[in-house]
Amino acid sequence: MTEKMAGKITLRELAERIGARLEGGMAETNILGMAPLESAKAGDVTFLTSRKYAEQARATTASAVICTEEFTGLPKEGTAALRCKNPDLARAKALNIFFPPHKYQAGIHTTAVIDASAKIGKNAHIGPYVVIGANVVLGDDCVVLAHVVIYAGSKTGNRFFAHAHAVVRENCMIGDDVELQNGVVLGANGFGFAKDTETGRWHRIQQTGQVIIGNNVEIHANSCIDRASMQETRIADGARIDNLVHVGHGSTVGENSLLCAQVGLAGSTEIGKNVVLAGQVGVAGHCRVGDDVQVVAQSGIPGDVEDGRIVSGSPIMDFKVWKRSTAIFPKLPEMARAIRLLEKGPEKP
Amino acid sequence: MTEKMAGKITLRELAERIGARLEGGMAETNILGMAPLESAKAGDVTFLTSRKYAEQARATTASAVICTEEFTGLPKEGTAALRCKNPDLARAKALNIFFPPHKYQAGIHTTAVIDASAKIGKNAHIGPYVVIGANVVLGDDCVVLAHVVIYAGSKTGNRFFAHAHAVVRENCMIGDDVELQNGVVLGANGFGFAKDTETGRWHRIQQTGQVIIGNNVEIHANSCIDRASMQETRIADGARIDNLVHVGHGSTVGENSLLCAQVGLAGSTEIGKNVVLAGQVGVAGHCRVGDDVQVVAQSGIPGDVEDGRIVSGSPIMDFKVWKRSTAIFPKLPEMARAIRLLEKGPEKP
Amino acid sequence: MTEKMAGKITLRELAERIGARLEGGMAETNILGMAPLESAKAGDVTFLTSRKYAEQARATTASAVICTEEFTGLPKEGTAALRCKNPDLARAKALNIFFPPHKYQAGIHTTAVIDASAKIGKNAHIGPYVVIGANVVLGDDCVVLAHVVIYAGSKTGNRFFAHAHAVVRENCMIGDDVELQNGVVLGANGFGFAKDTETGRWHRIQQTGQVIIGNNVEIHANSCIDRASMQETRIADGARIDNLVHVGHGSTVGENSLLCAQVGLAGSTEIGKNVVLAGQVGVAGHCRVGDDVQVVAQSGIPGDVEDGRIVSGSPIMDFKVWKRSTAIFPKLPEMARAIRLLEKGPEKP
Repeated sequence: MTEKMAGKITLRELAERIGARLEGGMAETNILGMAPLESAKAGDVTFLTSRKYAEQARATTASAVICTEEFTGLPKEGTAALRCKNPDLARAKALNIFFPPHKYQAGIHTTAVIDASAKIGKNAHIGPYVVIGANVVLGDDCVVLAHVVIYAGSKTGNRFFAHAHAVVRENCMIGDDVELQNGVVLGANGFGFAKDTETGRWHRIQQTGQVIIGNNVEIHANSCIDRASMQETRIADGARIDNLVHVGHGSTVGENSLLCAQVGLAGSTEIGKNVVLAGQVGVAGHCRVGDDVQVVAQSGIPGDVEDGRIVSGSPIMDFKVWKRSTAIFPKLPEMARAIRLLEKGPEKP
Repeated sequence: MTEKMAGKITLRELAERIGARLEGGMAETNILGMAPLESAKAGDVTFLTSRKYAEQARATTASAVICTEEFTGLPKEGTAALRCKNPDLARAKALNIFFPPHKYQAGIHTTAVIDASAKIGKNAHIGPYVVIGANVVLGDDCVVLAHVVIYAGSKTGNRFFAHAHAVVRENCMIGDDVELQNGVVLGANGFGFAKDTETGRWHRIQQTGQVIIGNNVEIHANSCIDRASMQETRIADGARIDNLVHVGHGSTVGENSLLCAQVGLAGSTEIGKNVVLAGQVGVAGHCRVGDDVQVVAQSGIPGDVEDGRIVSGSPIMDFKVWKRSTAIFPKLPEMARAIRLLEKGPEKP
Repeated sequence: MTEKMAGKITLRELAERIGARLEGGMAETNILGMAPLESAKAGDVTFLTSRKYAEQARATTASAVICTEEFTGLPKEGTAALRCKNPDLARAKALNIFFPPHKYQAGIHTTAVIDASAKIGKNAHIGPYVVIGANVVLGDDCVVLAHVVIYAGSKTGNRFFAHAHAVVRENCMIGDDVELQNGVVLGANGFGFAKDTETGRWHRIQQTGQVIIGNNVEIHANSCIDRASMQETRIADGARIDNLVHVGHGSTVGENSLLCAQVGLAGSTEIGKNVVLAGQVGVAGHCRVGDDVQVVAQSGIPGDVEDGRIVSGSPIMDFKVWKRSTAIFPKLPEMARAIRLLEKGPEKP
């Protein structure tokens, strides 16, 4: 994915490109690489994104440290501070400079099977054994790696990037700057059945809807976003979905929301904007999780959640309440004993 | 998967085919499409499968509404009622009429690598880059899409349907009308090891058994059904398995049972008939979940469960008990405080 | 994967090869097959690995039973005992004799797309439609089945075995005797983003690190091991990872540890040696689970765990405490009522 930068960059230029204020150090010093605090050395830029490591940062021999305005103890001789409001973001930008993503050459591998009716944009890289169905439209500058399968009727914007073995099913609509990691399945049939109560058998409810993915979305390895029965499953702009996540049919994920690994949304589940669902969270169907909600790992959400709440537990409750109640849970045997004693009353003298 | 119906159908014929009684409306009215309540218009059939939406149904301008015998307020002028016992099932049947599944043309793609000893039934559609091993037998009317791999010795019945990237390992036995969504892995090695207690190393226990799938089974995207160590892992007729489900080696899933997304069965786990395991449920190994059991999402089942129970929690308990106990859980801090006060006794005057 | 042994073996030789002491029976008796207690018959060897089945073992007509030194009731006439300290391990060894793994012939399928700069060791079996990138190095005796994709720069030791549809991303380092089941994704991008607090958008933190896999490791179907942002994600020698497991970026799994199905490690999570995480366990990021820790299914680990503990619950506690507390949990409504009564005090006479 990434390759070591061939060249070098001056402190001055680095500060500009990551939006930092240079303090100490020589503006024309060349920075040659980037490394975490535990291994950074002279010539490197490093970063302090958590206070936990402040002592390490004060002792570093790196040429520069990305840090907040508030951090004290730097610069010491030979180490510049690259001060900014958001060192996390500045670090991300610096990594992009020192480890630019691999560039895939434009070209279509001879083994790719592409339907004659498909339209492929400019500068596409199409890898070996890719299969692209009828009426597919790919925007410009797309990268479609080995073994990716795109079923009939799907459309993507520009800079679509699909890693090996990703699958896009029928009639998906995908925006610009969408990346699928390996093994992602977009648009498989939703899990919808009607019970024939006389025979006990399940009849399939045809999943006739679509999956619609906004702009600037990442979906990670082996996650599954199911197509809706009617209408659509929708992932909004800027959403991030980690590995092995299940998004049931007819669900929506709002802008800039984050679904961590192994999260499951049952179906017709509505996740607002800027929501964070930590790992293994489950959300029931036909309910709404409001904007800016944060959910602790392994929580179970059975119904609507108001905007801005921080919740935990299965079923969920207020996070602070959950902290207190789970702290008491291991004392239940003592509590039960105390109640029994109280019920007996004071020993007769 | 599905395409808009080209033609049209009269109300009379629609009623017959979905098993409904026509009330109001003109029997010879043409129905042109099908849509949910929020978007249905004149010419469409719509459906009322939950009382929640009764008001919407009473206000619809659709030409017909699939509903129960009990539903009141229809027909209003121009809207017929299609009355039946099970509107959910009637809706499924109607969807099949208006959105019939895509027909794949018979034919074997030139890039498919099929062992000379394999037997392929009549009218098979075999997609690009499919790999079929020695002695595989496929029944009639099978559809095997791009990149599917079927290892040596596996056999399927008629109308087997495998979506792109599904894998069937060695010696699986598959019934009629089985559908695998993308990325399903049938028959990977079970997770069986013997510890060498002297070295601490794990020795593989060869997984020599099979996976056996009954008739009319659906397995959804990226789910894994492992082969048994000896004997078999078995999915009975009519079972439905959602995305990202793990069925451990030697487990069995009974007739018409439903495993929702991200469920896990440890191994040698026996699930009865007509069971519903909601999302993210885990079941321990070497235990039996009885017929007709229903399990709430995220529950953990450590041992046998009697027929017909509704259970919840990790570990599980009776669903009603769980409802009451989880309602009290956030009050544990208060309860602990109350006990401390009672222990102190009444304030001395 | 496995095939019935063509030949046969004497009791004497079998005892030697599985490290057992032969008691009763004739040393030169031929053993023709192996079967579990419920189906073993004369000519077979069977095994008793759990006391539960002792009665069945005493009644068997098999020619030999693998069992402990302590087991009584055998031999009866015609049935030998193969006594050993660890019948589980002896059974694993016997299965290897009677069901040896399938041997894949050396050879490279004509459809494999292998970069000219890749180095393939001796006796490799490379299946159809395999794609191998630039500078990949495979050791000797590797088996790479259909549709496997290995990205540029990855290296494996000897006897690497990758089942159909496994993916190895850029620059992974893999030891000897590593086996990947179908659909495994090694080295996909870690889930790392920096929030631009002004726009609310997530910026990718380049995942520039590696995945490093030790010797003698198995990773099962559709599991995902993410590459680190910087430095590495590491799976140590002898580890076993089941289906649908998520190992977040920068995590480490120690020697001989076992991660059961659907386990999730958030990221920078450190799992010690000889740890067992049962199914669906979740572990937070930036914490350490000590050596020899055992974790009950569905537990949630929010922070460090000391060596040797047995823990359960979400969040975890001591296993024994959890057993007692979960036993009381369904009685919370009674406890709450008892407290209310106590607060009211004794009825006035």
